[in-house]
Amino acid sequence: MGSRLCKRAVRSGFTDYPFFDPILDMPPSMNPPISAGHPDGAGSNEIVRTDLSTPAVGRLSLYFRELHRLLDAGQTSTNSRDLAAMVNVSAAVVRRDLSSIGSVGRRGVGYDVASLADHIGVVLGSGVHWKAVMIGVGFLGNALLRYRGFERLGFSLAAAFDTDPTKIGGVVGNTKILPMDQLEPVLRELKPELAILAVPSEQAKEVAAQVVALGIQGILNFAPTTLRVSSAVAVINVDLASELQQLAFRIQNA
Amino acid sequence: MGSRLCKRAVRSGFTDYPFFDPILDMPPSMNPPISAGHPDGAGSNEIVRTDLSTPAVGRLSLYFRELHRLLDAGQTSTNSRDLAAMVNVSAAVVRRDLSSIGSVGRRGVGYDVASLADHIGVVLGSGVHWKAVMIGVGFLGNALLRYRGFERLGFSLAAAFDTDPTKIGGVVGNTKILPMDQLEPVLRELKPELAILAVPSEQAKEVAAQVVALGIQGILNFAPTTLRVSSAVAVINVDLASELQQLAFRIQNA
Repeated sequence: MGSRLCKRAVRSGFTDYPFFDPILDMPPSMNPPISAGHPDGAGSNEIVRTDLSTPAVGRLSLYFRELHRLLDAGQTSTNSRDLAAMVNVSAAVVRRDLSSIGSVGRRGVGYDVASLADHIGVVLGSGVHWKAVMIGVGFLGNALLRYRGFERLGFSLAAAFDTDPTKIGGVVGNTKILPMDQLEPVLRELKPELAILAVPSEQAKEVAAQVVALGIQGILNFAPTTLRVSSAVAVINVDLASELQQLAFRIQNA
Repeated sequence: MGSRLCKRAVRSGFTDYPFFDPILDMPPSMNPPISAGHPDGAGSNEIVRTDLSTPAVGRLSLYFRELHRLLDAGQTSTNSRDLAAMVNVSAAVVRRDLSSIGSVGRRGVGYDVASLADHIGVVLGSGVHWKAVMIGVGFLGNALLRYRGFERLGFSLAAAFDTDPTKIGGVVGNTKILPMDQLEPVLRELKPELAILAVPSEQAKEVAAQVVALGIQGILNFAPTTLRVSSAVAVINVDLASELQQLAFRIQNA
């Protein structure tokens, strides 16, 4: 089921789910849910092996972010109402999402922030150490390499690649920039799961094919082009101009 | 209807549509469609005032992008099958989307690339000249100011704002960086519709409140926090770390 899901190149933003499944011809949100859950329980919560819809995964990711913000602020407990306000959903949705992963708040007490954060983290795989490589260190690649939000979620940017000789050998964030001709040996050695593509459109397809051939399992693609890769590879596309266009559409039609 | 839709802060990526309508408690894709279409027809196509679902708006934005790529390559006609392949949907979905805006391909001939691009452009408001301001010129803001994709779609980045005195007065891309204390007079003069927020999380809510008070109608928010603004303001959130987390979830559960 997961692999069929991964066939879709999923875009980002308000057009969230712009792609219909070519076979089922229905919006992804109506597709069978992703089988989720983690075989190993953690913390005080029992992990229920359950089915999570793709929107639910997105919301869990946001609860996780907000719970960590609470932890940083020293807050030890929270409730569905407060969580709901933090991510703009209803408290009923929060309760349903959390109970679907086996976390039930106690009436009048709510949720323990630390254990709920840990629990969602396990479901989302944030305890797993993921290795990513950056392909393309232009202005966007540069900004992404310096973005500390990735590390906080357990992602390390293990290496970056560019064709520009003036950039090669430099370090951005904590990541060294290597020449593209080292892509093969470095990926074979580091075995990263993820590649972030911040290359021009014209190069994106070729680069995607290269990293997939070298065993990359997931691609976060910032090039404004739709990648067509093996169904075994997950792709998330972020098209920044399209986001702005959709924002404009919403304003125009408000 | 549009304004209710705008109440939702919509996130980006695979969690596309993570937000349920707090009132209807159903995924946005199940909400009543957006009323779309443009009062003035353009080109050879009759514009049908129709209802577009939010995923359809996203797909139209992608067809638009691909049609412009064909135009640049000198191609004059295309068909639903080729367009479908370009954006990873079925040909039936392409035909349905295009007929919903009044564009019907001719059997054996297909679509004229230029007029179809124009027509979708009108529906999406790309003929309208949109003014945007950038708030925050860190590495990400810097990359976004240099991104030429916005201009191509009719967006101009009219001004940028930052608090760092060393950046003020500089020009990035074609946009001048101004101090935050000029936000009010400059926005009152330029009257931009859109603001792009590339500020740290801690400042995002305050900055959002400021720009909304100054008449901004839409916000593209890159700060990893959910903004809560007036229901009359459209918000699209792009959380880059969350995108990567969702990619990891898909790999883990494939």
